[in-house]
Amino acid sequence: MRILGIDPGLRTTGFGVVDEEGGQLRYVASGTISTQHLDTHALPARLKVLFDGIAEVVQRYQPDCAAVEIVFVNVNPQSTLLLGQARGALITALVTNNLAVAEYTALQMKQAVAGHGRAQKSQIQEMVKRLLALSGLPGTDAADALGLAITHAHAGKAMARLAAADGLGHGVNIGAKGAPKVSQKASYRAGRSR
Amino acid sequence: MRILGIDPGLRTTGFGVVDEEGGQLRYVASGTISTQHLDTHALPARLKVLFDGIAEVVQRYQPDCAAVEIVFVNVNPQSTLLLGQARGALITALVTNNLAVAEYTALQMKQAVAGHGRAQKSQIQEMVKRLLALSGLPGTDAADALGLAITHAHAGKAMARLAAADGLGHGVNIGAKGAPKVSQKASYRAGRSR
Repeated sequence: MRILGIDPGLRTTGFGVVDEEGGQLRYVASGTISTQHLDTHALPARLKVLFDGIAEVVQRYQPDCAAVEIVFVNVNPQSTLLLGQARGALITALVTNNLAVAEYTALQMKQAVAGHGRAQKSQIQEMVKRLLALSGLPGTDAADALGLAITHAHAGKAMARLAAADGLGHGVNIGAKGAPKVSQKASYRAGRSR
Repeated sequence: MRILGIDPGLRTTGFGVVDEEGGQLRYVASGTISTQHLDTHALPARLKVLFDGIAEVVQRYQPDCAAVEIVFVNVNPQSTLLLGQARGALITALVTNNLAVAEYTALQMKQAVAGHGRAQKSQIQEMVKRLLALSGLPGTDAADALGLAITHAHAGKAMARLAAADGLGHGVNIGAKGAPKVSQKASYRAGRSR
């Protein structure tokens, strides 16, 4: 299973691609999508960069599923709105590429990667480096994204264990919990009143 | 000029298509895109319905530009975040279809349509019906969307008048003010650390 993790941000979005096979994790790629070269007021253009960037990552690395951080409301409501719009563009890029999307909080990611929810950014970077046997520390945005992919790999294994204990065997879709059914068809009503 | 107006919402998004030619407005179509048939927790699926719905409207009516309402922070920060994500998906659908996107506040729309910023929903419906010579009242979401298209038509005329007074002639792109340059290329760095 190849997992694409995404740490959403309007200025900088981190991504990380990890393969999980038989309990083994393998680093594939990571990086950031930046909109910092654009006017901060050019929201539509910035959202297009995020959408196109994720679409390009998906085309290049062909992940089987995605894990996106659940963002929280900021002290600044305007920032919350901006981050929400960025996250909307990113998730749209995933679902229009037919990827199932799982969502995890930063707390869940920290627990999965560092063993406790109070881990600092630097501890996440260090643990991601160790878990994926990287030669250097990943950047903070990429580390969070790789951490989300690792979290999804762990969640999948936990679900597979539960399914096995239930006698359901290994045929379970381990990505199913976070993967809502995606409607392929828009539902809308259009009218022509004259 | 054919304008697509959009009133963003995660449950219901209104859209309205209006033609403007030589100062005359003509109704083309309006309606809503609804995600109410989906589980409220299935955010990725709901965003896909909004994205696909707008893409379908764009394909069907081939607008030249779009006008989207600027949403404001809600008293409930979680609602702000949800609305932000919906708006992100909608704007992404417009820019990936190469449409220039103008943004207007509800206040600007009310002033353009009803002449004052304190207009009630029902007054907007009535004024939109009158301005577009509709046979019946549009729904509130569609009326707001049509109102945004009308607002953009007015803004375009005002800019053309300014340009003419400046001796710049009529060659001015009247949609240019609200239409940020759209970068066609994603900017991202990808790394492979081993």
